[in-house]
Amino acid sequence: MSYQFEHNPQAIEQDSFRQIRSLTELDHLSKDEQQVAMRIVHSLGLPSAAEQVRFSAKACDAGRAALGKDCAILCDVEMVKQGVTKRMIKTPPLCFLNDPQAATLAAEQGETRSMAALSLWQDHLEGSVVLIGNAPTALFRLLEMIEAGAPKPALIVGMPVGFVGAAESKEALWQAHQALGIECITLLGRMGGSAVTSASCNALLRCNIGEYY
Amino acid sequence: MSYQFEHNPQAIEQDSFRQIRSLTELDHLSKDEQQVAMRIVHSLGLPSAAEQVRFSAKACDAGRAALGKDCAILCDVEMVKQGVTKRMIKTPPLCFLNDPQAATLAAEQGETRSMAALSLWQDHLEGSVVLIGNAPTALFRLLEMIEAGAPKPALIVGMPVGFVGAAESKEALWQAHQALGIECITLLGRMGGSAVTSASCNALLRCNIGEYY
Repeated sequence: MSYQFEHNPQAIEQDSFRQIRSLTELDHLSKDEQQVAMRIVHSLGLPSAAEQVRFSAKACDAGRAALGKDCAILCDVEMVKQGVTKRMIKTPPLCFLNDPQAATLAAEQGETRSMAALSLWQDHLEGSVVLIGNAPTALFRLLEMIEAGAPKPALIVGMPVGFVGAAESKEALWQAHQALGIECITLLGRMGGSAVTSASCNALLRCNIGEYY
Repeated sequence: MSYQFEHNPQAIEQDSFRQIRSLTELDHLSKDEQQVAMRIVHSLGLPSAAEQVRFSAKACDAGRAALGKDCAILCDVEMVKQGVTKRMIKTPPLCFLNDPQAATLAAEQGETRSMAALSLWQDHLEGSVVLIGNAPTALFRLLEMIEAGAPKPALIVGMPVGFVGAAESKEALWQAHQALGIECITLLGRMGGSAVTSASCNALLRCNIGEYY
């Protein structure tokens, strides 16, 4: 038996985004926002996810500008870091989850390593793009830090996944972003993850080099 | 404003799996299969995903036995490799996607790098655990290789995601596995990805050390 399937990577990508456009309603979004929403749908294989995406007023502009200046990209987990397309960035993203200091701090404070790792973000936050795709605790801690006066990222992509705190942390980000003066992209509800989070960043990087679908 | 959220990682994990049990119907699955299905639901934040999971007759037994013997773990993409929990394995998983040979071969043959990389799997296939979380083309190519007489993995976790070929490649795996004499775990439909794929492997690794939820 032989299998009939498309071998050509460009043809696969073109057909994927053609299908995604036909399966989603994106007219209310700007050109750049549509690219992000489509990459999220692409990563999940779920057209209805487009309805859960939220953009603050200048999220895409702020993210594109920061990425265009080779800003720090801060990731909560290694999978998010791995998901950022290397050919489109000059400086590798940062992730402190496996830093020994994070483990020590987490054990001392009885909290997740993901949260503890954020104490190592402080010096990199100003003007950064933050990618949180796994840990609600990291997103909550970041909001606490910004409220307490920490430097502000240019953009927070906040898309942790799961059953405990994920939906709540994203709702908190969405509710607080205007008061805190931060730009954000989020995916409301339980769904999220490393793939949608890095895909959102990749969508903005592609906009910066004129790759639109 | 302060945020109320659970800081303790063990409490988060316990509560997550308690919620997943209450939101899914798993009684038709074996004890080990339930662990895999719950990790998939956990990774996606989507209880209904449990209905799409399929296990061949001895998938969990074969996977656990191979992993218990420190078998090769072959991954289609780096994100899957990154997702396998390091503390539970002795030898790092293998991924040849970024091997220069894969790029050269892909360009020569006008096919995806994910497919081309499989030519480098041949020597590692026998008794391995294969994790395909991204590329339908990699899963199709693997089925072609096994039909053509390539050594057989102990277990294929086949969960590519997307709109072009993903559902078809998983249906092909599910339809062909008995005739090919291979054990497999798959997630039918468009959904899938790096996280569910590595989570499935992690679930089996946890079974091997007696960590059940």
